[in-house]
Amino acid sequence: MNGSGPGTAPALDRIAIVGAGLIGCSVGLALRTAGVADVALEDSDAARLRLAGDLGAGRPVEAGERGFDVVIIAVPPAATAKVLFELMNRDLGLIYSDVASIKTSPQREAESYGVDLARFVGGHPVAGRERGGPAAARGDLFLGRPWVLCPTAETAPDALATMRSVAERCGAVPVVIDAEAHDRAMALVSHAPQALASVLAAELGRADEATAGLAGSGLRDLTRIADSDPALWSQIAAGNAGPIADVLESVAGRLQTVAAALRAPEPGAATEFGELVADGNAGRARLPGKHGARPTTYAVLPVVIADEPGILARLLTDAGAAGINVEDLSLEHSPGAPVGLCELVVRPDQAEPLAAVLEERGWTVHPPSAPVSGR
Amino acid sequence: MNGSGPGTAPALDRIAIVGAGLIGCSVGLALRTAGVADVALEDSDAARLRLAGDLGAGRPVEAGERGFDVVIIAVPPAATAKVLFELMNRDLGLIYSDVASIKTSPQREAESYGVDLARFVGGHPVAGRERGGPAAARGDLFLGRPWVLCPTAETAPDALATMRSVAERCGAVPVVIDAEAHDRAMALVSHAPQALASVLAAELGRADEATAGLAGSGLRDLTRIADSDPALWSQIAAGNAGPIADVLESVAGRLQTVAAALRAPEPGAATEFGELVADGNAGRARLPGKHGARPTTYAVLPVVIADEPGILARLLTDAGAAGINVEDLSLEHSPGAPVGLCELVVRPDQAEPLAAVLEERGWTVHPPSAPVSGR
Repeated sequence: MNGSGPGTAPALDRIAIVGAGLIGCSVGLALRTAGVADVALEDSDAARLRLAGDLGAGRPVEAGERGFDVVIIAVPPAATAKVLFELMNRDLGLIYSDVASIKTSPQREAESYGVDLARFVGGHPVAGRERGGPAAARGDLFLGRPWVLCPTAETAPDALATMRSVAERCGAVPVVIDAEAHDRAMALVSHAPQALASVLAAELGRADEATAGLAGSGLRDLTRIADSDPALWSQIAAGNAGPIADVLESVAGRLQTVAAALRAPEPGAATEFGELVADGNAGRARLPGKHGARPTTYAVLPVVIADEPGILARLLTDAGAAGINVEDLSLEHSPGAPVGLCELVVRPDQAEPLAAVLEERGWTVHPPSAPVSGR
Repeated sequence: MNGSGPGTAPALDRIAIVGAGLIGCSVGLALRTAGVADVALEDSDAARLRLAGDLGAGRPVEAGERGFDVVIIAVPPAATAKVLFELMNRDLGLIYSDVASIKTSPQREAESYGVDLARFVGGHPVAGRERGGPAAARGDLFLGRPWVLCPTAETAPDALATMRSVAERCGAVPVVIDAEAHDRAMALVSHAPQALASVLAAELGRADEATAGLAGSGLRDLTRIADSDPALWSQIAAGNAGPIADVLESVAGRLQTVAAALRAPEPGAATEFGELVADGNAGRARLPGKHGARPTTYAVLPVVIADEPGILARLLTDAGAAGINVEDLSLEHSPGAPVGLCELVVRPDQAEPLAAVLEERGWTVHPPSAPVSGR
């Protein structure tokens, strides 16, 4: 332990990251950006380590080095506990954490190795990209994202405080929950969705070429994560089998119910499908919106604009003159068309005043839409 | 019939579009951009019709008008056949088509109305957005996309030739297949995927707030189409029940198999999950690539911005001062963070000059991404 008492900022001058992939390298970039004096990386793959270094994620750990303030283990989930055990034996650092997207099974495995759990805090920065490796790393990967910390009953308070500080330095929001709750949550928001994307893509693999040719951007979005690594996902599935099975069975059951309704001869049986879509509308609205807050509802004000440089700036300047905060906007412009549509997203009570101001200033404003959920 | 013989370009000077929603309005924009002299719109909703007109999609159909070269019916699927019958009775046009995403049931219904099938060609431009209405319309919505045409046994060759020409003028690729094959294909690439996205979003609706807060961009992409309209989807499901049920049963079966393997006590049972992901990799590779469409490529320039009123106007004013036209932009507000990322979409050759100007003016600009496909 670094010995800092409560209220003292934990020492974070020397941090080692073991595993220079997407997450490890992004942590390195984030910590160096945040001003951590010494970030060192270790990876069994020398080329990866060199690339990570060139990208500015940190220097290599030198042979025989020990005593880092924090060691972050960023290796595949199935290897995490063993690597933790080995690094503690090498006395590489004072406090240890990891980044695996499953938490109970590595923790249980670590216990079975007899590691010092007081110095270990399981961690999971909930961020990622469909591309892996140090080249895909970004120092802003964790900005505003949850960084889950799962202390064990034995984890020392100082160790948890230190890891909170690491997460915050990376721009993330520390979220302390127990390992089982984390794994159930990830089964729902990440692991089962992976299975759904993959099963849909697998169905497509059996389609003839003409059929596949009719696929659009909706299906491409829906199956984007189907590009993921089978070996990594075998590890995750093995490490979180029960909670994933729970969600998959629930999903399969609902799909069977909808299919059965579609098979029924009575007219109106398709309402089962409509109810599913309606339930989906409601569920989708629960996704985190701006600033992690529950989604606010917004009004959307359509304004017709000419297709010329600076027009958007003038529109927003006029909106700003009305003292109204534009929460978001989207542009719709058809190539070749002389006008486009700018949709201003504002608080519902601000839509009418904004429309009045803009019309007074000569803009062509259309009636605001019904409030929609923020993203 | 317009009487043009084979080899003569079909007359396409006057086109009526009935239904000024996303698809109808986009067809209007596309045809007007392609130089069709007279595009007229009809919609029972006067506000929609006015917005469509302001956006340049076409003038309103006048009372008593008739004899359009082509009439395109762009109303909800369940209303298509009845509207076709009524428009033919009004003698609105010479050749009729529609845009419904199901083809067999509207066709069967049209037969039951006793319409003149020689003058009708079922159509489905396979393009869309998760948002509806004229505000979301784009003239380039159909660029490089398939436009399925399903002639009946009675459809006159001239009628089919004319609709091929309409599709081509919209930038689409005409694909002639029979209605049953179309419906089976759409069940796989569109209708069942809708059910999957919705069932996943519906599961999320039962999650507690902490769980929902852990959702990331992967889940947002995966459930994007779960925002769709339940009433529309009830109609689609009713009109394509059998083929949709086939796919849903197959998907549910595979999910059950994976769940059963996860429940099994033997180690290594999770390889079933890994195999699913591998099958998904292969299936995903069958999706049409960028060559399938002919989108413009753009560069994306990420700029870090503070979350405060007027900031976007200042950014765009500075971009405008550089004489650069921002084609599109998207905002990423990280939950809880005081800053966000604004991604400016510009022509690839303008990314570097824009970055230079913005940096000079004190903005934090990240390196532009490799050019991406336009949306």
